[in-house]
Amino acid sequence: MKEFPLAKAYRFLESGPVILLSTFDGRKYNVMTLSYMMIIDDSVPLIAVSMGDWDHSFKTLLSTKECVVSVPADDMLEKTVAIGNCSGDEVDKFETFSLTSVRASCVKAPLIADCPVNLECVIYDDSLVSKYNLIILRVVKAWADRAQFKKIHHNGDGTFFIDGDTFDMRTKMTRWPDYIK
Amino acid sequence: MKEFPLAKAYRFLESGPVILLSTFDGRKYNVMTLSYMMIIDDSVPLIAVSMGDWDHSFKTLLSTKECVVSVPADDMLEKTVAIGNCSGDEVDKFETFSLTSVRASCVKAPLIADCPVNLECVIYDDSLVSKYNLIILRVVKAWADRAQFKKIHHNGDGTFFIDGDTFDMRTKMTRWPDYIK
Repeated sequence: MKEFPLAKAYRFLESGPVILLSTFDGRKYNVMTLSYMMIIDDSVPLIAVSMGDWDHSFKTLLSTKECVVSVPADDMLEKTVAIGNCSGDEVDKFETFSLTSVRASCVKAPLIADCPVNLECVIYDDSLVSKYNLIILRVVKAWADRAQFKKIHHNGDGTFFIDGDTFDMRTKMTRWPDYIK
Repeated sequence: MKEFPLAKAYRFLESGPVILLSTFDGRKYNVMTLSYMMIIDDSVPLIAVSMGDWDHSFKTLLSTKECVVSVPADDMLEKTVAIGNCSGDEVDKFETFSLTSVRASCVKAPLIADCPVNLECVIYDDSLVSKYNLIILRVVKAWADRAQFKKIHHNGDGTFFIDGDTFDMRTKMTRWPDYIK
């Protein structure tokens, strides 16, 4: 995997892809699917993710204070949905879905080699958990094998789409010279 | 415009589209483009948006405590980018971009008839503004002329894409029967 500049890592998340979030509880790896996520600060970078206390990953993330956020490409659609349709309480998801775990460099949660993008994260702020189920993560290391790939998006109703036609509008964004570099 | 069920309004936002946020400062309408946004609670619904104190809409939103979040379709790509490339300090954006404002029913900010989806919002929580530039909005009325349209997504670098091929995975999401209704 190729390391990717931290200050540009937000670019894999801004368009709102479905992501995978992996944890390690000291015994086994686990992974969940989610799409309630946003960029809080692109330069640090900080991201917010939402999950509930019914999620098996919730306790592990809060107690270990670290995870990996992976961005699956369109070839992972079936697996991404299936990962979200079962619980780490019941199955070993890495085994069940034949995911290739790779040791991360800053956290004990695993990178997923099947995904083109992997972001090593630590909890930056867990004070919004009780009120909003919101966890703010700081990305501490970014890996990207490909900068271009079709990401998966959930319509919130069980239908999904992948990135469609692309339009280069950089010359129209004169107000944001640093942003489009 | 057709009213849309509040509890399903989040479905227009989950996939991470670029949105327009309109305000009314008592003198004129203004609108900004943004894409740092997430669903906080789909049933209420609550959404978080991020903007900075350099945004002209920021002060108006915080003082009036209401806005409209509109979701533009792909035919609005050029306009959506142009709206984000200037400031309400300098131009009357509704006039400059020939946007058709329509009176909302619960807030004084305008609906934008050019967009298929309009969500009337009030500030639910502004306590995260100083720390994270994060404003939590409650959707109080939703309007949708079309449930299906291609939304715009920003890659964070001045390139954009619209919704691509769709996949119906509802039969694979057996764990979430209410979610996929």
